[in-house]
Amino acid sequence: MSLTPSPEASIGIFDSGFGGLSVMRAIRHVLPHENIIYFGDTARLPYGSKSPETIIRYSLESASFLIDQGIKILVVACNTVCAVALEQLQQTCPIPVVGVIQSGIEQVVKTSQTGCIAILGTRATIASGVYQQQIQARLPHADLSAISCPLFVPLVEEGYGEHPLTELVIQEYLHPLRLKAVDTVLLGCTHYPLMQAIIQKSLGAQVTLVDPAPACAEHVRLLLEKAELLNQQTTLPHYQFYVSDDPEKFRLLGKTFLNYPIEHVVLKPV
Amino acid sequence: MSLTPSPEASIGIFDSGFGGLSVMRAIRHVLPHENIIYFGDTARLPYGSKSPETIIRYSLESASFLIDQGIKILVVACNTVCAVALEQLQQTCPIPVVGVIQSGIEQVVKTSQTGCIAILGTRATIASGVYQQQIQARLPHADLSAISCPLFVPLVEEGYGEHPLTELVIQEYLHPLRLKAVDTVLLGCTHYPLMQAIIQKSLGAQVTLVDPAPACAEHVRLLLEKAELLNQQTTLPHYQFYVSDDPEKFRLLGKTFLNYPIEHVVLKPV
Repeated sequence: MSLTPSPEASIGIFDSGFGGLSVMRAIRHVLPHENIIYFGDTARLPYGSKSPETIIRYSLESASFLIDQGIKILVVACNTVCAVALEQLQQTCPIPVVGVIQSGIEQVVKTSQTGCIAILGTRATIASGVYQQQIQARLPHADLSAISCPLFVPLVEEGYGEHPLTELVIQEYLHPLRLKAVDTVLLGCTHYPLMQAIIQKSLGAQVTLVDPAPACAEHVRLLLEKAELLNQQTTLPHYQFYVSDDPEKFRLLGKTFLNYPIEHVVLKPV
Repeated sequence: MSLTPSPEASIGIFDSGFGGLSVMRAIRHVLPHENIIYFGDTARLPYGSKSPETIIRYSLESASFLIDQGIKILVVACNTVCAVALEQLQQTCPIPVVGVIQSGIEQVVKTSQTGCIAILGTRATIASGVYQQQIQARLPHADLSAISCPLFVPLVEEGYGEHPLTELVIQEYLHPLRLKAVDTVLLGCTHYPLMQAIIQKSLGAQVTLVDPAPACAEHVRLLLEKAELLNQQTTLPHYQFYVSDDPEKFRLLGKTFLNYPIEHVVLKPV
């Protein structure tokens, strides 16, 4: 596929479910005129506790679906997918593929003053070691703590993002940070920004929480600008949502992540 | 497929993941000489928060795989699958298909003295209304509370089955029972028996918790006996485990559910 896409083509966003909508939210903010096609693999979520082989297979299938829709760039909005499958996606896809991890790392490196950093993510993301290796490569003297927080996603998806229960789970997971003077914490999963207030409360105001989404959106903007692929139309953009299970649940739950109403969601079985 | 299976053929057990191993444990106890083939769809778990259409599709695929292995009976060890797909499975499969729900209902009806009953299950199980309708049909004056407890499965899978955190989640979910004199609580998900002690503590000793697994195992025994399909061999039985993702994780986590070591697990991608 060597056709040059047109600036009017959509940005494709892929996630295992709902979480990527928080990245779409950041992209909408930076690029309000871009058309967007979102695919959430809700029939097979969550990815975070599955094996790299399975995550890679699912991701290649989803990317292929979005590319068939004629997108001009693919944003992988899921940290887990970026951690284990980004290279395979970049090798396979005939269009630029952007992940959230690189943006997260840039932000952490810029933000941390002391080099005492914590990375929170799913089991698969933390096990991949991608965040740890790349931050350590940039900041060789950094004191890194990497903590997998597998209960955060179900808590957010069940609407407990701001519940006292979640406070206890946070205390449990972040216990190893108790004696460390961490100055920067990376929210390495798209669900975690929905718990931002309560994580901040638990860690204290002196800690900076980094959400990779805004930096990722800015990265997408720069790439499109460089490739002269920014949409010049200033009409209302067109948003399309596809999920592999339960469009109605996605429509209802998705609003919280996107902070914008979702009107129509199409079922795309996998 | 009209071939009569031989008594040496295996019992097939299907579950969305690990939980069905607690049903296998009960079957092993009652039928220690039976060969068993277990399939856990770990690449697509959990089923409990997915739509009936998707659960039916996944279940038919898994049943078909087990039938191809030459099993003599199919045990659907997942309450969610039984609640939404049992009829389709029974219509499609050329062998007897046994679920856990009917056994659970029999036990509840036998156990409850006052008719004040609570049913705990996944979102899909509770939404199906199957337990509620069938108990109400048997006990028209029963006072039923049906509560979906979507955080229980991740808590058990993350090893928090006996953690104080889980106590708080239980208090949160079971709050509506506070003012009711419930005498019987149905554990309508194969993961919940792993939280039995802590649920009992929260509800008090006067409440009887019903786990459908032992009654289901007895049901399987009776069916096989009637069909003259009980294995007469008294050699050590053969257990085969197939999963759609991460055999090693299944081997390690599965022990807790099965209460027996799992030696070899085969990957069967879906």
